[in-house]
Amino acid sequence: METEISSIGEFGLIDRLTDNLPKFNDSTITAVGDDAAVMDYGADREVLVSTDMLLEGVHFDLTYTPLKHLGYKSAIVNFSDIYAMNGTPRQLVVGLGVSKRFTVEHLEALYAGLRTACEVYGVDLVGGDTTSSRSGLVISATIIGDARKGTVVRRSGAKPTDLICVSGDLGAAYMGLQVLEREKVASAGQKDFTPDFAGKEYLVERQLKPEARRDIIGELAEAGIMPTSMIDISDGLSSELMHLCKASKTGCRVYEERIPIDYQTAVMAEELNMNLVMAAMNGGEDYELLFTVPLTAHEAVSQLKGVRVIGHMSPEDQGCALIGRNGEEIPLRAQGFNHMAAEE
Amino acid sequence: METEISSIGEFGLIDRLTDNLPKFNDSTITAVGDDAAVMDYGADREVLVSTDMLLEGVHFDLTYTPLKHLGYKSAIVNFSDIYAMNGTPRQLVVGLGVSKRFTVEHLEALYAGLRTACEVYGVDLVGGDTTSSRSGLVISATIIGDARKGTVVRRSGAKPTDLICVSGDLGAAYMGLQVLEREKVASAGQKDFTPDFAGKEYLVERQLKPEARRDIIGELAEAGIMPTSMIDISDGLSSELMHLCKASKTGCRVYEERIPIDYQTAVMAEELNMNLVMAAMNGGEDYELLFTVPLTAHEAVSQLKGVRVIGHMSPEDQGCALIGRNGEEIPLRAQGFNHMAAEE
Repeated sequence: METEISSIGEFGLIDRLTDNLPKFNDSTITAVGDDAAVMDYGADREVLVSTDMLLEGVHFDLTYTPLKHLGYKSAIVNFSDIYAMNGTPRQLVVGLGVSKRFTVEHLEALYAGLRTACEVYGVDLVGGDTTSSRSGLVISATIIGDARKGTVVRRSGAKPTDLICVSGDLGAAYMGLQVLEREKVASAGQKDFTPDFAGKEYLVERQLKPEARRDIIGELAEAGIMPTSMIDISDGLSSELMHLCKASKTGCRVYEERIPIDYQTAVMAEELNMNLVMAAMNGGEDYELLFTVPLTAHEAVSQLKGVRVIGHMSPEDQGCALIGRNGEEIPLRAQGFNHMAAEE
Repeated sequence: METEISSIGEFGLIDRLTDNLPKFNDSTITAVGDDAAVMDYGADREVLVSTDMLLEGVHFDLTYTPLKHLGYKSAIVNFSDIYAMNGTPRQLVVGLGVSKRFTVEHLEALYAGLRTACEVYGVDLVGGDTTSSRSGLVISATIIGDARKGTVVRRSGAKPTDLICVSGDLGAAYMGLQVLEREKVASAGQKDFTPDFAGKEYLVERQLKPEARRDIIGELAEAGIMPTSMIDISDGLSSELMHLCKASKTGCRVYEERIPIDYQTAVMAEELNMNLVMAAMNGGEDYELLFTVPLTAHEAVSQLKGVRVIGHMSPEDQGCALIGRNGEEIPLRAQGFNHMAAEE
């Protein structure tokens, strides 16, 4: 059964979507149901806020993106921004623009994903705005988080001798997108098409259901390692490295052979006849953490699970470069996943 | 000279848009240029957050809305939400979705409006997200504010005997929209058309350049009046009254003859052969404050500039009604400015 949104109205919709929301944090005083959410922060905290907008046809394709996954991802990309500051996400507000082809059930599926992400990461969904859209779905999420004073890690703190570390592996989300696009093309005009994801499950999951690296933040804290700079990888490693270098006034050297790449990513690059390293450097949507640590932390950081040292910062005048397997220097360019440049 | 956004890229655009932003609040530690904005709140504060999404073709028509005004209004509607909690807006984050027909200059105009609003109201623009859109302009703004502990005014605190007050006058923004739409129709196909706003200046200004009622919040504080409930009028008086009553578990009686209406609004309703009171009750986009005070505050509230007592709360089982000039009871309905119901 599908319910037209107009049959329950905006407020009915909001009531339905926000009914019985859980509350995880003591700092959440009032959540949905008023003009603004109320939070209480102790004086030893810094408050963090970040926002991301996802637009249909630009950031996602509903042909192959289940709405629940989309909701989950919309939350995750925001949480990731807070972890990238060494903070803890606390409250999420979500603005939705919805065109007429969406039903209440569609939005409930989207919210189910948002709720699941919030539950997994202990975040309170505290409000939002829902309105009609003329064309497709618009999701704008804003996350508020906090960090103990003096523990926020910015982009700007790296020194020219610091080690560059990255969590997880890179390029898989981008390859997942290629898999999904390929199956979309294959399905065109076919009834009862079953997409073939065999051997590509990891890639598809990285694209459709990414996670934020809360675990890495925990590992770093446990090991007593305070990164000197940090950023999450949403637009591709190249682009994010250049952000860190620009903010920290450094150059960098990262080594091709050190870039962590999953087996499935490599196989898919081979199948598509794509340059694997370029895909890993510029693919985007990995939501891994890229950070720098002092040279003295080398031993400690090398023992962290799921973290790899991929290079080092350098003096600013040396610029940013990838060092190839034969020792050649390839200047970094922020081509990656730039929606502004890639637009039609 | 017009610059294609693609010629400077997303990051170039952000650099350009956020260059040299002023900082008003000590609580703003880091603004743009990192994954999240950092704020520092003392332990005696509560933090407020609210978000609003504005979509081209739904909330605004660029045929007659200058982008600078649109930016200003996008900020104001958010500030208004914080004042409606008896709080002070502090930090604004703005997400933009932009289609290819917009140039850097267009977005600079939009940001000029955002900046002006922030300057006038002492708010820091601390971040955002800019991305491409397939169709038109999408603006999603999130405001963070604060209030001294124990001073936040919610929708839910009204008692059945409380007086209902409203600031300013109602229906003018809606009539301004009618004026603008009329001139749009008149201009169709004409070259060098000059719209005729003579005698309608106030209406047009209310629609294109609304203000948030910080002054009323100040007046109330100065007079030592703490509202028992409050909301801002964005969807029309009827709708907002029903929100207050629902949250406070009360009914209400408001009197037609007490509804504050400007002379220009009345003239325009006459011209359009529209029911004036219905326009004032359901017009929307007034951004005035609707609040309740205890009966004991009657004397004090009557002396406030720009505030009018329009009725009183009542027991819940009496429902919500407008009392007409002849004493007839007209049940309130939240028809007003509901974008979800009104969508095409």
